[in-house]
Amino acid sequence: MAQKVKLSTIAEALGVSTATVSLALRDSPLVADITRERIKATARELGYIYNRRAASLRTSRSGIVGVCVHDVMNPFFGEILKSIEHELDRHHQTFILCNHYDDLSKQRAFVDTLLQLGADGLILSPAIGTPADDIRLAEANNLPAVLIARTIEGSGVCGFRGDDTYGMSLAVDHLIAKGHRSIAMIGGTHQTSTGRDRAEGWRQSLMKAGIEPRPEWRIEGPRSRHAGFNAAKTFAGLDPLPTAAVCFSDLVALGLMYGLAREGLRPGIDVAVIGYDDIDEASIAMPSLTTVANGQAEVGHRAAGALLDRLSGQPASDETVLIRPVLKVRASSEHWEMSQRGQAAG
Amino acid sequence: MAQKVKLSTIAEALGVSTATVSLALRDSPLVADITRERIKATARELGYIYNRRAASLRTSRSGIVGVCVHDVMNPFFGEILKSIEHELDRHHQTFILCNHYDDLSKQRAFVDTLLQLGADGLILSPAIGTPADDIRLAEANNLPAVLIARTIEGSGVCGFRGDDTYGMSLAVDHLIAKGHRSIAMIGGTHQTSTGRDRAEGWRQSLMKAGIEPRPEWRIEGPRSRHAGFNAAKTFAGLDPLPTAAVCFSDLVALGLMYGLAREGLRPGIDVAVIGYDDIDEASIAMPSLTTVANGQAEVGHRAAGALLDRLSGQPASDETVLIRPVLKVRASSEHWEMSQRGQAAG
Repeated sequence: MAQKVKLSTIAEALGVSTATVSLALRDSPLVADITRERIKATARELGYIYNRRAASLRTSRSGIVGVCVHDVMNPFFGEILKSIEHELDRHHQTFILCNHYDDLSKQRAFVDTLLQLGADGLILSPAIGTPADDIRLAEANNLPAVLIARTIEGSGVCGFRGDDTYGMSLAVDHLIAKGHRSIAMIGGTHQTSTGRDRAEGWRQSLMKAGIEPRPEWRIEGPRSRHAGFNAAKTFAGLDPLPTAAVCFSDLVALGLMYGLAREGLRPGIDVAVIGYDDIDEASIAMPSLTTVANGQAEVGHRAAGALLDRLSGQPASDETVLIRPVLKVRASSEHWEMSQRGQAAG
Repeated sequence: MAQKVKLSTIAEALGVSTATVSLALRDSPLVADITRERIKATARELGYIYNRRAASLRTSRSGIVGVCVHDVMNPFFGEILKSIEHELDRHHQTFILCNHYDDLSKQRAFVDTLLQLGADGLILSPAIGTPADDIRLAEANNLPAVLIARTIEGSGVCGFRGDDTYGMSLAVDHLIAKGHRSIAMIGGTHQTSTGRDRAEGWRQSLMKAGIEPRPEWRIEGPRSRHAGFNAAKTFAGLDPLPTAAVCFSDLVALGLMYGLAREGLRPGIDVAVIGYDDIDEASIAMPSLTTVANGQAEVGHRAAGALLDRLSGQPASDETVLIRPVLKVRASSEHWEMSQRGQAAG
């Protein structure tokens, strides 16, 4: 019914060629922006619906890129996604989102959907346990993939993530320089590269300072605000109580600070707390949260750029690019020192 | 290349008919779950890629539902989306997400994409300024729509949202019962039905109690945690200082509480604070946040159900269903009373 409006109707209405209309509706860069927008506005007025399904059987590009992460509600991914979205928008690619919640079958269902739709590419933060073969299967079926945040040994595709070992060592070195000798690490799991590398950075920094990390200092698991909140109970039960905690993420750290307060411990004063990611909330929290800025915007921007390069015909790379993180020092690790000094003076 | 594996290859491998394989790959309910999964597993092993683009030109259903909201990172939408996702998953519908950030052209581009893909339906929390005609255009092009969280006068489609006027009146009535006579309302805008209705609930409850709301008590605008944080400055500058604040959302309330603490005011003790939405974080915040539970899960569940009903051929409804909210009383509105009692006793 909607297809009764023909390209030629739009072309006649605007005094341009049918070919120009066709190119404009496919977002071809051959048509000037202003002309393209005018053609699209007229097409909309006339009720024309461009049939991408039919068109994508004729051309090799669908204009769709799928993005699949653990949970789009996690602000860490949110900031990466905003940056990807911005980059794809500029290139008129439609951006389709999906959560896998670390469920491999959900991730596979989404990849199947992308293959079935003839999507142009996939940006993926792989679910725990993703075999390299899953990525190769997508690639073999003409669905180029780029990895973000987590990488997979032997996947053969490029990836972008922060240098997690280095980033966590910045946090621990900072605490050691402030005089801390007992530093717990809360959250994350050895099942992801992120979790392994951040724990490794914590361990290495302690060892370098001649501190043997006690097994009970490593409270593995928490990755959400709620889990960080619950971990405060475990932390508060440690004897002796560590003077500081580095956390797998800002969400875990913010939850831990809520939980410490419930346990009667003043976060930032009785226990120094450091997060990871520098999400928007970190700077306004009470106390404001010292954290490792992880370059999410850069990860998203470069991952989208790498995929667009592939789509424009550039050769594939299998390099994992590590973005260098930066420590942001705020109240949650600064007031502890003052309170200790106060005790020493008194 | 991937299409070289034929339906008949899979059928032979499993000893079933080609028709059964075809139905199973299209998620037809005519094939038993266990058979469908076995067929899909075999198809995957053999490297068969079901071509949904070609198939959707032959059948009337693409299996895709688009969901478009202001911002998927907002935990209020997150909880609705999880519930929609769960319902669509059960019906083998692929769930495609998009943010419109209250940008009408972004919303329109997504609706165009859905039309072009031949999507089965749209669940939309409409961007500010969405004309009813946009919804009618989608419907006229065989894209049934269901609205969530916000509704549009005259759109002619059904919608699901909380009863915002009633919900906010619960919060204000509770504060009035605790003895508050000066209650600010922070955040939200008159450009959305949600913002209008919540402000109306606040105004009505005050009027009913014989309290004339002062213009400066209405701090309009904030809808994010950061904006709530910034609004604390404006609030703290009011003279006389209101004894309580009801907020447009939990995010605004949580940001306001951070901000009040920066201004030297103890949230929950010096100023009672109530949020709206009962997001996961509300119960663990410091202080734990009194809030209006808004039935997000029910909104999502019923919206997805209504769309699935439409897809199965049931007639369209243009009803807006208001879900009845419930007040969750926590520390942020309980300790204020105690502190006042303390003063009265002293």
